[in-house]
Amino acid sequence: MIDLAAEAAALDAADPLRAARDRFDLDDGVTYLDGNSLGALPRGVAGRVADVIAREWGRLHIRSRDESGWWDAPQRVGDRLAPLLGAGPGQVVVGDSTSINVFRALVAALRLAQTDDDRRTEIIVDATTFPTDGYLAGSVARLTGATIAAVAPDRVPAALTDSTAVVLLNHVDYRTGQRWDLPALTAAVQAAGACMVWDLSHSAGAMPIELVEHRVDLAVGCTYKYLNGGPGAPAYFYAREDLIPRLDQPLGGWCSHRDPFAMEPEYAPAEGIAKVRGGTPEILSLLALDAALDVWTDIDIRDVRTKSLALTEFFVRCVGQLTPPDSVRTLTPLDDSRGSQVSLACRDAGTTMKALIAREVVGDYRPPDILRFGFAPLYVRFADALHAAGVLREVLR
Amino acid sequence: MIDLAAEAAALDAADPLRAARDRFDLDDGVTYLDGNSLGALPRGVAGRVADVIAREWGRLHIRSRDESGWWDAPQRVGDRLAPLLGAGPGQVVVGDSTSINVFRALVAALRLAQTDDDRRTEIIVDATTFPTDGYLAGSVARLTGATIAAVAPDRVPAALTDSTAVVLLNHVDYRTGQRWDLPALTAAVQAAGACMVWDLSHSAGAMPIELVEHRVDLAVGCTYKYLNGGPGAPAYFYAREDLIPRLDQPLGGWCSHRDPFAMEPEYAPAEGIAKVRGGTPEILSLLALDAALDVWTDIDIRDVRTKSLALTEFFVRCVGQLTPPDSVRTLTPLDDSRGSQVSLACRDAGTTMKALIAREVVGDYRPPDILRFGFAPLYVRFADALHAAGVLREVLR
Repeated sequence: MIDLAAEAAALDAADPLRAARDRFDLDDGVTYLDGNSLGALPRGVAGRVADVIAREWGRLHIRSRDESGWWDAPQRVGDRLAPLLGAGPGQVVVGDSTSINVFRALVAALRLAQTDDDRRTEIIVDATTFPTDGYLAGSVARLTGATIAAVAPDRVPAALTDSTAVVLLNHVDYRTGQRWDLPALTAAVQAAGACMVWDLSHSAGAMPIELVEHRVDLAVGCTYKYLNGGPGAPAYFYAREDLIPRLDQPLGGWCSHRDPFAMEPEYAPAEGIAKVRGGTPEILSLLALDAALDVWTDIDIRDVRTKSLALTEFFVRCVGQLTPPDSVRTLTPLDDSRGSQVSLACRDAGTTMKALIAREVVGDYRPPDILRFGFAPLYVRFADALHAAGVLREVLR
Repeated sequence: MIDLAAEAAALDAADPLRAARDRFDLDDGVTYLDGNSLGALPRGVAGRVADVIAREWGRLHIRSRDESGWWDAPQRVGDRLAPLLGAGPGQVVVGDSTSINVFRALVAALRLAQTDDDRRTEIIVDATTFPTDGYLAGSVARLTGATIAAVAPDRVPAALTDSTAVVLLNHVDYRTGQRWDLPALTAAVQAAGACMVWDLSHSAGAMPIELVEHRVDLAVGCTYKYLNGGPGAPAYFYAREDLIPRLDQPLGGWCSHRDPFAMEPEYAPAEGIAKVRGGTPEILSLLALDAALDVWTDIDIRDVRTKSLALTEFFVRCVGQLTPPDSVRTLTPLDDSRGSQVSLACRDAGTTMKALIAREVVGDYRPPDILRFGFAPLYVRFADALHAAGVLREVLR
């Protein structure tokens, strides 16, 4: 334990991201390892939202649609997110929930795939996916007549056929923390003539993604995990630039219309990524996210990934040294094919997590037997990883 | 003008709602008549949202899902809205945009209508509707194979056939302010075996609606107009109690699942109105709405309607007496078949509205030639109506 404490101190002292922690409003009495569920509170959010309420809403009222930039906020905040996704300006728009955007993306992807070949009617979904993605895929299949096949991500290349229209995968498995090979899977899916849709909820903000470099077709994700946008912060939708003119989504509203204030009875989509908008966005949540993105100023996402791998490796090592033999089993891969969480299988995992939380170590529990610990590199320290492992030892004893 | 001023003073003095204005954070230098677009700021919102950010998010983090009531908030806030809609507990749920809920309601209504008769494949939409409703109906038709007929609301009874599955109407026309006969139209649609969906965006909070009394099937609406929930505040979905067990919506996510934290791969809807939820709700916007609903404490919605009719009648009279002959034409019905806005047709309406706003009288402009003035009875005074008419006179001269 003494060696581990010295190592943690040395790692924290050498951490190029150590100053980023001050950009968050944190309680030092709590070890917060649930940033993979809800990111911590960036300091600038409270003041910004207070101003949005008191001045932009309370004084300017509806004039804020233009004067405070409310109208363009979904595209503007999308452009701010884009560098974290390896996307360019005009490729990302923010709004609605991830569920809604999964629905949008799947219908749009089916239509793209069927433009070239209308016999492509199969949607492949991640058999290990966060369940909402599968539920929405089922709904899309029911409405469109498509079929669904649930396939583990590493078996997708073998499952691709001439009927495959769309493949929807999670970049990082929410349960185990496994990270799938985005470049290779994207290439395989596209080589088979299908459209690739990634759900980046568990990876964006924790690692470089490079959507443009890997020519990903479509992607969606939430912003309340490693992007720290706040509870239920709006999701985003990314499209490859050359696909945008052909993109045809099913949930357009007046905000995605070419000429919204003409209030025309016929629908005509906007040019550019604004065509993926829908109804009026939830401005308070959207502008909280806008403020939350300030924490990324001068942060190199490659440093985030380096620290993420080091933190999770160190935590696994601490757990291995400190906890009783065979009391937990690490589910997360120990090579670099992982995201920024560590999942431990353990008996009585629900009770164990309650006991950890009672001792101010906050992770979460996923049935049937998984303890999840998220390591958000902007604010989690190596000392926190060691402390959490030490408290886990106490609880497991 | 002197007589009108005395009348305004007398009407304000006798107004049983006059104290409600203090529940809003208003700038007395501005005459705000755009509450039909974005309602004014209730005083309790800023403090509540500040606490949600600093304590519920910043300190309790994800524990707030249970401890701060985030998880149940969509149903809880729905139950708070219900009395304003004439609905009971467990019939209203809040979340997502009105556009998304129009899509949900139309697909669910088609499925309800087709349970009994699968030859019902026509959706009738309001030919004069707010355009989003028509756009979404078009998308639903494209996905389901339904057909669309655009019919003016008063011609709907004559347009109903054995093929009609669903009728979607706006209770109040956003452009003219005309209020349609909800009880009679609902009865006619149901007598024809079709499902009635109302969009209440321009009526809820301005008049009693009585969804249960008139056995309305489904209804949706926004909360940022007369309900003052804030910019882009989440929408609501109402369902008739006996329809809820059969309700089958297309945008369910993990939050509408029967056992959400089991994370099951197969979708099974929740019992009750929670089945109309979807993904994670935007909590900051949702809880701002929750706080905004405090202004309705001890308010009788019948008093709101009485004042609304009196305010709009008085404004029309002031405009008639003060503006140059033939300079404006009132589009809003002068009997009680109106909502809580007054629409005036006028040459150069866009320029005229800009001039009014420059003089701190805030209404809005709708193309091609409409000035809209919304009268939110909780905070607009008769003196404000007179002042606005006086400034309109100056501008038109």
